[in-house]
Amino acid sequence: MPSFASDNTAPVHPAVLAAIAKANEGHAPAYGNDRWTKGATEKIQALVGSDVPVYFAWNGTGANVTGLSTMLRPRDAIICTEDSHIHADEGGAPERFIGAKLIDLPTPDGKLTPAICAPQVAHLGDLHQVQPKVVSVTQSTERGTVYRAEELKALADWAHGNGFLVHMDGARIANATAALGGDLRATTRALGVDVLSFGFTKNGGMGAEAVVFLDPALGEGFQFVRKQGMQLSSKMRFVAAQADALLTDGLWLQLAGHANSMARRLADGVAKLPAITLARRPDANALFVTLADTAIAALQQRHTFYVWKAGTDGTSECRWMCSWDTTEQDVDRFLADMREVVG
Amino acid sequence: MPSFASDNTAPVHPAVLAAIAKANEGHAPAYGNDRWTKGATEKIQALVGSDVPVYFAWNGTGANVTGLSTMLRPRDAIICTEDSHIHADEGGAPERFIGAKLIDLPTPDGKLTPAICAPQVAHLGDLHQVQPKVVSVTQSTERGTVYRAEELKALADWAHGNGFLVHMDGARIANATAALGGDLRATTRALGVDVLSFGFTKNGGMGAEAVVFLDPALGEGFQFVRKQGMQLSSKMRFVAAQADALLTDGLWLQLAGHANSMARRLADGVAKLPAITLARRPDANALFVTLADTAIAALQQRHTFYVWKAGTDGTSECRWMCSWDTTEQDVDRFLADMREVVG
Amino acid sequence: MPSFASDNTAPVHPAVLAAIAKANEGHAPAYGNDRWTKGATEKIQALVGSDVPVYFAWNGTGANVTGLSTMLRPRDAIICTEDSHIHADEGGAPERFIGAKLIDLPTPDGKLTPAICAPQVAHLGDLHQVQPKVVSVTQSTERGTVYRAEELKALADWAHGNGFLVHMDGARIANATAALGGDLRATTRALGVDVLSFGFTKNGGMGAEAVVFLDPALGEGFQFVRKQGMQLSSKMRFVAAQADALLTDGLWLQLAGHANSMARRLADGVAKLPAITLARRPDANALFVTLADTAIAALQQRHTFYVWKAGTDGTSECRWMCSWDTTEQDVDRFLADMREVVG
Amino acid sequence: MPSFASDNTAPVHPAVLAAIAKANEGHAPAYGNDRWTKGATEKIQALVGSDVPVYFAWNGTGANVTGLSTMLRPRDAIICTEDSHIHADEGGAPERFIGAKLIDLPTPDGKLTPAICAPQVAHLGDLHQVQPKVVSVTQSTERGTVYRAEELKALADWAHGNGFLVHMDGARIANATAALGGDLRATTRALGVDVLSFGFTKNGGMGAEAVVFLDPALGEGFQFVRKQGMQLSSKMRFVAAQADALLTDGLWLQLAGHANSMARRLADGVAKLPAITLARRPDANALFVTLADTAIAALQQRHTFYVWKAGTDGTSECRWMCSWDTTEQDVDRFLADMREVVG
Repeated sequence: MPSFASDNTAPVHPAVLAAIAKANEGHAPAYGNDRWTKGATEKIQALVGSDVPVYFAWNGTGANVTGLSTMLRPRDAIICTEDSHIHADEGGAPERFIGAKLIDLPTPDGKLTPAICAPQVAHLGDLHQVQPKVVSVTQSTERGTVYRAEELKALADWAHGNGFLVHMDGARIANATAALGGDLRATTRALGVDVLSFGFTKNGGMGAEAVVFLDPALGEGFQFVRKQGMQLSSKMRFVAAQADALLTDGLWLQLAGHANSMARRLADGVAKLPAITLARRPDANALFVTLADTAIAALQQRHTFYVWKAGTDGTSECRWMCSWDTTEQDVDRFLADMREVVG
Repeated sequence: MPSFASDNTAPVHPAVLAAIAKANEGHAPAYGNDRWTKGATEKIQALVGSDVPVYFAWNGTGANVTGLSTMLRPRDAIICTEDSHIHADEGGAPERFIGAKLIDLPTPDGKLTPAICAPQVAHLGDLHQVQPKVVSVTQSTERGTVYRAEELKALADWAHGNGFLVHMDGARIANATAALGGDLRATTRALGVDVLSFGFTKNGGMGAEAVVFLDPALGEGFQFVRKQGMQLSSKMRFVAAQADALLTDGLWLQLAGHANSMARRLADGVAKLPAITLARRPDANALFVTLADTAIAALQQRHTFYVWKAGTDGTSECRWMCSWDTTEQDVDRFLADMREVVG
Repeated sequence: MPSFASDNTAPVHPAVLAAIAKANEGHAPAYGNDRWTKGATEKIQALVGSDVPVYFAWNGTGANVTGLSTMLRPRDAIICTEDSHIHADEGGAPERFIGAKLIDLPTPDGKLTPAICAPQVAHLGDLHQVQPKVVSVTQSTERGTVYRAEELKALADWAHGNGFLVHMDGARIANATAALGGDLRATTRALGVDVLSFGFTKNGGMGAEAVVFLDPALGEGFQFVRKQGMQLSSKMRFVAAQADALLTDGLWLQLAGHANSMARRLADGVAKLPAITLARRPDANALFVTLADTAIAALQQRHTFYVWKAGTDGTSECRWMCSWDTTEQDVDRFLADMREVVG
Repeated sequence: MPSFASDNTAPVHPAVLAAIAKANEGHAPAYGNDRWTKGATEKIQALVGSDVPVYFAWNGTGANVTGLSTMLRPRDAIICTEDSHIHADEGGAPERFIGAKLIDLPTPDGKLTPAICAPQVAHLGDLHQVQPKVVSVTQSTERGTVYRAEELKALADWAHGNGFLVHMDGARIANATAALGGDLRATTRALGVDVLSFGFTKNGGMGAEAVVFLDPALGEGFQFVRKQGMQLSSKMRFVAAQADALLTDGLWLQLAGHANSMARRLADGVAKLPAITLARRPDANALFVTLADTAIAALQQRHTFYVWKAGTDGTSECRWMCSWDTTEQDVDRFLADMREVVG
């Protein structure tokens, strides 16, 4: 039975598998000097600008940490949310590899705002305190929300106004872009994002992410950082082929848009169940819901998903994640089981 | 035309591709809690002992650096050869991630010996000097040689006698094992190797290596180091499936043995050409040869390979690497072109 | 006019200067192999046990970071308070040198408790999250409080019960020890503290701290970490002489006890001024008070002290720190000026 | 009896002690915001230019590592000699704190030249290899030699021509400057040195070094690196007072010049003893001599010095170091004992 645990548990899209098989033609230069890497790079450049350096990495942690590393001197710090993947789910990789401190801020909905970040400016120049240099946002966020263009622009303007750079963890950038209308450049580079981790793995890929230097100057020397970050694939063509397949004929947006619509379908169904509280309408492909622990236990007999925050009052918050391969039948069966469980 | 540049330029073996496709069945637990990872782990354990912790990583640098990191406190140093991949070809990743110094020693043939390492013992206890803790060998070596069992045992005994651990960079362990008769346990664990990077990528894989803790106690907590080293694949089943395919029915040894025999065939042909000096009979799949720069230039018109060490006397040393897909025809054509070029 | 800003602004005690001058006799072995270092080490061992390794460092940050580094593998994390010096005032040195994440927890009074720390246990074994390994306390705390013996014992028991170690930042351990009755062993080692940064600088020294391994096994190899941490003084005798002077005839407790009593005298005076709110009776040598911003500005015309937390309601919290050389006259003049300012 | 082991075993000059005592006047701002730090800074600026940022550090390792850290991105490497203090005697601190690789090159006399460094340029742009960014020289060198102005200029020109920066470990810069005529600016900044570790400890100080950014732009943000490098003294006035005393009325050059002249006197005496081979006339305050192991053992009964390189032919190389307090009598007695021992 399909899982609502994570888009990481989903299979690889058949077009990705086919592209990998097709790239398996005889010998090809190693380490990215091959035509598949060139092709996938150009497809990303077609979305955000031909002047933008693009480098492929193995996974999201690798893309985030190596990208951030190029934006920082070791004495600099990163402003992020307390829920952010780089802070809460990367096992301390940023601290270990970069040596930088993460300043993790609470938010109501996974989104940073100038008001939330503003107090950090007070520490600038204080030699006993780390100096913020990067504001890192996740799009779509770890709370299932999507920064709207005006929100992101306000944050980026504030950041740049204080001499900071803007990093975007785009492990689910496809879901966000689909939700925002499909124009990646307009919703990232044009708003002031400087470096983007462009995720493919969660959206039908096998293991492929790109570090995209929307501010081209920041990409200088990144290839050396990637090597040190152990993210340089020798047989790079098979990483690039994944991205290429997903970027062909808008497949990436189609898959992400489908996942988003399945989340909305799920939300529509949940809205009719008073025993389950929906945190908010899903912007992308994740729902956060609160329900009785007994109902959770019963549902987990039949479906796979995570308890996000265990409560102490007999209810807990769960995350329900839809992926590119979630079907209407999957959603409806899940809803039917919910109705049975919560009455 | 096939390349003699590197086994990294070779394609993926069809059985590996098939295994990846076969693993693409619906949802599966992420991060290695899947049955493919379990299966591939057990196949490696069948070779070296069921008590041995096994973890998959993306690439050779990742396997080496994270494996070494678990063997060291940051104040410790690593003894290796000046040609070793960790010293000469990993872009400073060990220093960056581990913070340790590499003590790189010259060797005649890529192999460390107790005599070569012995002077390092003099620094033990000197608080101004880094303290060696690990001896890292590469098998087969970067110079195309293979440690024989008695050589490796002597080195490991010396290392353990001084309180050091033994790490093996096995990016080409398959070629070495094939050359030594095919018994991995007898030629690694039984001789005193403590941690092995078990390479699959160069031997028909796409991007898959394993960190194998032949001394099981050393594996404690490695999963956290792997996460920090950005080597944890979310869709791990597709990494494990590669190893599984290669470990099925001895395919890994068959492919490596074939590459080795192609290198011997190439050496046999070169031996008849006085204009080309063979450094030594190949133990595994790499030849090192010295020939005129003009001949190199002519050959590179038709074949891809690296100049390993540019000379100043009109000749240079080249590396010719055979891979799992090198054919007798490839070798014979290369030899024919040599004969044409060097007369 | 003397300052209430910090015990770091205070001068060096004359006995310390005299000891430095006395140690300046001809040549002496460098790097700690001298008789002054031996003598000061033995004086510390006399306080906590003759089996305890003791090493001198330049400053508090150095003592904390190198001490913590020996307690941790880089994948481990440190539990501390959000006010702790290692988190808030060491410029990211722990992250930079150790590569570890600091888990900073809010507290009402600068003290960690088992209840405050307990939620961190939930992350043990989760490979996406850093693994706590050390609980670091500050004694006396950055909020001017002192852990009582039973509080510290409860915390240390909880920590050890979970497999964690206990580190104590004792930049002001003299003030705490004086407040607790003067028995250092009884109030640190006997309660379960594993590693202590023993501070001398703030208590009449010039620049001298000791890293004291109350659990002797943890000190293994520390001399190499100290070297890497740039804390090894070549002319060590002049660092050790400072500690020696302060440890002679109980001078360290006498100076700290005096500073504590000046803080109590100040508190007694403040208690009579309704316009100034005292956070709590001082346990050691620091007072935290809240008063009108206008009064602060007026007082800062005549006295030096820090606004600790700027308020938004026209009042702010200030820290008033007494030091070994604060006199009754200093306190009384400060109080007189307060009365004049706040009426 | 005075030691010829190291200038680190020497005492502190009385003027330094007096300056420390004089700085002990009441409260002063911490962390370098005091008038002594300002004064000593200006004295250094008077030597090299008023636009040059100057920061004090505890010790030579600290000054070198933090200075180098500001010159490098972590992916960059440092070219140095195999004898250099940063490579051979700092316990791996540069690798640990900076994460950079040191490329250690052999030299005949402790001096780098463009010819020695030239092969490193071949690696530029190779993404598998660390990228050199800094050439670090020691002045006077670890072999007792001093770069002449034209040598240093040639090296700095070569370095800058390749896009590299020039770092100088000046633990014994006073000895070198005295040997070169006394004009620090002319023999460092004017020749192209970008960052200088200006040592005071070995030349009569207690524990004081300065990081001097001869290229002022490189000093941006150094104060944060110094804090992370645990080199920020809270009671900074006592560090600065040491430098101030030594920089007053040319004391630093007088002391260093005296040490140099004692080394020459020692060399003159040794030249008359055929049983002792002098490596070369001393440029500064260190002699390297080779003599019979039996003679070494006999001399070490009466004098303290280091065997620098133990030989295997019954002779070994020793280092004899003169310091600011070495007297003519000390030298003559040492020579007399030599004559007695070697006949």
